[in-house]
Amino acid sequence: MTFRFELIHKSKKSSARVGRIHTPHGIIDTPNFVAVGTNGTLKALDNRMVDSIGLQLMFCNTYHLLLQPGPAVIQRAGGLHRFINRKMPIITDSGGFQVFSLAYGSVADELKSRGAKKRDGLVLKISEEGVHFRSYRDGGKVLLTPETSIQTQKSLGADIIIPLDELPPYHIGSKELIRSLERTHRWEKRSLDEHLKNPQGQAMYAVIHGGVDPNLRKQSCDYLSTLAFDGFSIGGSLGKTKPEMVEMLTTLLPRLPTDKPNHLLGIGDLESLKQCVPLGIDTFDSSYPTRAARHGMLLTQEGNIKVEKGENANHFAPIESNCTCWTCQNFTLAYLHHLFKAKELTAYSLASVHNLHFMVELMRKYREAILEDLI
Amino acid sequence: MTFRFELIHKSKKSSARVGRIHTPHGIIDTPNFVAVGTNGTLKALDNRMVDSIGLQLMFCNTYHLLLQPGPAVIQRAGGLHRFINRKMPIITDSGGFQVFSLAYGSVADELKSRGAKKRDGLVLKISEEGVHFRSYRDGGKVLLTPETSIQTQKSLGADIIIPLDELPPYHIGSKELIRSLERTHRWEKRSLDEHLKNPQGQAMYAVIHGGVDPNLRKQSCDYLSTLAFDGFSIGGSLGKTKPEMVEMLTTLLPRLPTDKPNHLLGIGDLESLKQCVPLGIDTFDSSYPTRAARHGMLLTQEGNIKVEKGENANHFAPIESNCTCWTCQNFTLAYLHHLFKAKELTAYSLASVHNLHFMVELMRKYREAILEDLI
Repeated sequence: MTFRFELIHKSKKSSARVGRIHTPHGIIDTPNFVAVGTNGTLKALDNRMVDSIGLQLMFCNTYHLLLQPGPAVIQRAGGLHRFINRKMPIITDSGGFQVFSLAYGSVADELKSRGAKKRDGLVLKISEEGVHFRSYRDGGKVLLTPETSIQTQKSLGADIIIPLDELPPYHIGSKELIRSLERTHRWEKRSLDEHLKNPQGQAMYAVIHGGVDPNLRKQSCDYLSTLAFDGFSIGGSLGKTKPEMVEMLTTLLPRLPTDKPNHLLGIGDLESLKQCVPLGIDTFDSSYPTRAARHGMLLTQEGNIKVEKGENANHFAPIESNCTCWTCQNFTLAYLHHLFKAKELTAYSLASVHNLHFMVELMRKYREAILEDLI
Repeated sequence: MTFRFELIHKSKKSSARVGRIHTPHGIIDTPNFVAVGTNGTLKALDNRMVDSIGLQLMFCNTYHLLLQPGPAVIQRAGGLHRFINRKMPIITDSGGFQVFSLAYGSVADELKSRGAKKRDGLVLKISEEGVHFRSYRDGGKVLLTPETSIQTQKSLGADIIIPLDELPPYHIGSKELIRSLERTHRWEKRSLDEHLKNPQGQAMYAVIHGGVDPNLRKQSCDYLSTLAFDGFSIGGSLGKTKPEMVEMLTTLLPRLPTDKPNHLLGIGDLESLKQCVPLGIDTFDSSYPTRAARHGMLLTQEGNIKVEKGENANHFAPIESNCTCWTCQNFTLAYLHHLFKAKELTAYSLASVHNLHFMVELMRKYREAILEDLI
């Protein structure tokens, strides 16, 4: 099956929409949540369990897989799907985000004035060609260019791939931001050209950039829409706060072609989903539900539960009484509380199962509500 | 169903025997391996997965459960089986082993002259009454006596329980060892008396002591055999080396009643199983297979595999081609190698599943071999 986006319904109430992304490894119903499995696994879960939870799209990180186990191993295994034994769709990024995060730190690091001290020296050189950096694994020099990123993503063979972009630091002058955007556009074009030499059934999503400047964001939409991308992802900083992000997306989304799917990179907390689904975002990736799980934060319809709170010690019922997840079907909140207190690894698995199941159900409900024009 | 030991076959070649232990939660085929789930879970696995692996008996530690979540919570949950959702048999120990290990360190610590510095002060007082110690969780004072140990084990409600014993340090003078054995015998008698006030379907195994003195071991067998125990476990140090242990067990086992099951406490590595099954040991508990798994050591019929070895990076086949475990049915050794290199929690779960499945199969083969008088 080749890549295709099918628009099923546009809400009468908002810009929310329900669709289906057809990929070589099956369908992704949209809007949907995309689980992050950086190294080819969701943390604390195996890929059979992930299947059973019903997560239709998994996000793997090219940066990590490039360094360990390396694209040659994955190619010999017959591609990423076979290597990690996942039958359903996978999306990979370019590797650029992690490399630039190493150089500049994350937006959060910047805003909180946390340095990138420990990582100093890992990024050796950024030029028009690409980025030279040092492997955190063996100290070897690695060159990431638009072409090598795409070649790596070809070896991995994900259903959806992403062109190399430059992630500018949050605090950047307007001239530098323009220069960064121009380079990003050149890199994305080179990535697309490399991809189109041998599409091998993969789809490529552009990455819209332009930082917190609405005009640059529009320019980015307009330019990238002229190229033969199969979808559009939104990257880089969209603002310091959630309202700023929502404002930016509100002006940005109407400029994207409506016949192609879009993806909001790295954002998938509950509040962002609530605010961005009505804007017409199709897919969201985030490690929030699994990271929250490992920190003992359980997602429920009644709000978050801190599993280690004393009041849960004697709660001899599932996390949610009507939940159909593996964890709630088999174990009580009291037992989970105990496993967290005892720092058992089992706790992280069971909490992750519940939180991911919650996300799958939440997105199903969003789709139902859009179909009924309630959102 | 009440507790009963059924002897099925005695080997013509050795003292090995095949039996069945009937318990309120089902049958334990013997000889068998007992998995250690200290806090009411096997590390990195959930109890449904443990069921599917076919581990018939699980060992939980009273010391840990006493401190977290405490017997009151487990009693309110309806007992340990319900709290952790295990349908099959459970055995609990007295809590003494951990308390005395804190006081003296393990035999290995002693032999390697490692101190117990970090734990100093945790054991406050050892007297005829029992042991006062400090909870590592909240610093509160806890009194462990034969009576409180059994009361705690009554709250937990395991199928098989163990009386409180004193674990003497490995380096102990012969007079002190005699005094320790006498106290252990008094404590075991008090434990049994407490148990028999309210058996509630539980079985109690004595603990044979006497350290490395064969005469004291014999005295311990002879005395404890006169009491109404349902089985006999073997505790304390049996020697510095495996040959010393085997020699001791060889003289000790013929003195145990053959119509009752026996258990070798805390020993279950492959070499010990090989040497002790022919002596007539019925059950062995050990955290070896799960700990080995978390350290990347995979058990196979061809010997141990160090999963992180470079040669495994491209092994695109299961750990063992004929293995029917969940891990081998779904994932390759190359993928496991990658998960370990990437330090993913999933690695520990998948390796543990394989190693435990290996133990279940190994014990099944031992039973078959005994039935055919090959061992």
